[in-house]
Amino acid sequence: MAIRKGKTIFFEKDIHIIANSAVVGKTEADGPLGHCFDKVFTDSTLGEDNWEMAESSLLKAAVNIVLEKSAKNESDIDLLLSGDLLGQSVASIFAHSERNIPFCGLYGACSTMALSMLSGSLAIESGGAETVIAATSSHFCSAEKQFRFPVEYGGQRTPTAQRTVTGAGAVVLQKSKNSLSPKITKGHFGTITDYGVIDSTNMGAAMAPAAAKTITDFMSDTKTAPADYDLILTGDLGQVGTSLLYELLLRESGLDISKVHNDCGLMIYNRQKQDVHAGGSGCGCSASVLCGHIIDEIRQGKYKNLLFIATGALMSPISSREGSTIPGIANLVNIEM
Amino acid sequence: MAIRKGKTIFFEKDIHIIANSAVVGKTEADGPLGHCFDKVFTDSTLGEDNWEMAESSLLKAAVNIVLEKSAKNESDIDLLLSGDLLGQSVASIFAHSERNIPFCGLYGACSTMALSMLSGSLAIESGGAETVIAATSSHFCSAEKQFRFPVEYGGQRTPTAQRTVTGAGAVVLQKSKNSLSPKITKGHFGTITDYGVIDSTNMGAAMAPAAAKTITDFMSDTKTAPADYDLILTGDLGQVGTSLLYELLLRESGLDISKVHNDCGLMIYNRQKQDVHAGGSGCGCSASVLCGHIIDEIRQGKYKNLLFIATGALMSPISSREGSTIPGIANLVNIEM
Repeated sequence: MAIRKGKTIFFEKDIHIIANSAVVGKTEADGPLGHCFDKVFTDSTLGEDNWEMAESSLLKAAVNIVLEKSAKNESDIDLLLSGDLLGQSVASIFAHSERNIPFCGLYGACSTMALSMLSGSLAIESGGAETVIAATSSHFCSAEKQFRFPVEYGGQRTPTAQRTVTGAGAVVLQKSKNSLSPKITKGHFGTITDYGVIDSTNMGAAMAPAAAKTITDFMSDTKTAPADYDLILTGDLGQVGTSLLYELLLRESGLDISKVHNDCGLMIYNRQKQDVHAGGSGCGCSASVLCGHIIDEIRQGKYKNLLFIATGALMSPISSREGSTIPGIANLVNIEM
Repeated sequence: MAIRKGKTIFFEKDIHIIANSAVVGKTEADGPLGHCFDKVFTDSTLGEDNWEMAESSLLKAAVNIVLEKSAKNESDIDLLLSGDLLGQSVASIFAHSERNIPFCGLYGACSTMALSMLSGSLAIESGGAETVIAATSSHFCSAEKQFRFPVEYGGQRTPTAQRTVTGAGAVVLQKSKNSLSPKITKGHFGTITDYGVIDSTNMGAAMAPAAAKTITDFMSDTKTAPADYDLILTGDLGQVGTSLLYELLLRESGLDISKVHNDCGLMIYNRQKQDVHAGGSGCGCSASVLCGHIIDEIRQGKYKNLLFIATGALMSPISSREGSTIPGIANLVNIEM
């Protein structure tokens, strides 16, 4: 049975990441991690009639690959936890609508990879599931169409804007005693944090305060410091959000994470050569970097104790147009080897 | 630790509904259950500038009341699980953005009340939480604006259409040994079911197959029959969906639930006198009927063994316009006294 200290959950069962998969589009494949992914779709439509279905196909492919890599059938999976950025999570719905697997729909914006791994770990810890899939996706064209302008319009993007990653990631989590796979040892559901940011082209600023809060609360609950971790990996703060996170943590909590921190939004593209402004974003950003690259590095022994903190900007096209603020959230899983 | 049989989770801990609240709008208060609700908002704007924020205020009120009724502070709540019908769940986000409670965002369309109770029960069973709030909402005007036409347009509605309930419901779930409150004993995450319905004004038809699947799977996993329950309560199938559910269950599984079945969408309005066509719908429909009426009846001893099966139509305005089908899902919790 898990134990709770403050807002942090300490898992007692051996919850292992027994398989991971990531698929991406062409721009992501052209980036520095291009060689890591299981599959690259150079045609960003994936042969579908619209961007929403293209994203569904991307997510479906990630789940197919993770099933194959884990040597599991659908009937071996007790619960599939998934969500995405699109209204009413349609990318997830149509990606999974033909599978005969119990489904738990989640909404955490770009924090969904951590949210689904955390919720899946709770399901395993409860005994209600033994094996689960946690998965998420985003697509540059479906996200731009949803939140900003259709790509076909060719709008100018601001320097603070991030490029939504065309990508999907999935993991199979399983309770197993003698696994040599990375293990999820702790989790932390974020608290919604609202610093009043209203600029929907500056997601980093909207999400940084939530990341700062989750990191501060987690360090306090676990009585640990940044130096206790090999890597503190945030989801998609990008250049602007990362600077703000460092500043907030130093000023408000006296924590300096800069020596052990990296951000998936800074890792996935070559910001000097690719036209991506402040970096990558979207559920698929942290999902593809974690599931395509980092988990394999953990397996290879590069990291022994890692914090994965995916951040989400909680906004809709309607709330933005109505002048509402953009609250943020940051969900955390502690992965150890 | 919970046990799993087939797709059904048998909870072992004593997970009790220690408090429940429901708030509604004027049309719902004019219906046959009008006297049951904790609060009625006769001004459907709730003093807000737009319908999305009006729905947020509704949900915020339900959570405030359930905190008061359970004599809990925010700091007593380990996890708040919530979602709604709006794109990117903005009703939930802005309802909870000022609370200092860890947040788990869910998306299950109109099935969210059962989904949040089920996910909250898993969290308690895991030991990761002791006390949680599960909550959801819908609002007639925000839903019409989102999915069909703005109410101000005055469009004609079809006979199969259901009226989205303006309402919100919340429960506090807690692990407690000697509680005299209703207890959640089993749960079942639905599987996405797609019968190819494409008519977004006929939600009942889209959701009935999912309800039939969940009921059939649950009865099979638990080796029970409809007669073992005092009440099988579906979420918001309305008149059309209820007829289809009876037909599907009889034809495909030989199950006759008609003697013990009721549907929140048929209970909340007086369909003869109120202009609601096929009945009520929306997350707030099953949430307000369950949390405003049924849970109190369970407490009073009217029901000893009840199945609450909230159904959701998994569609977005974009997927509908693009001609996609409307898959359904049905999540179940078994409540006993």
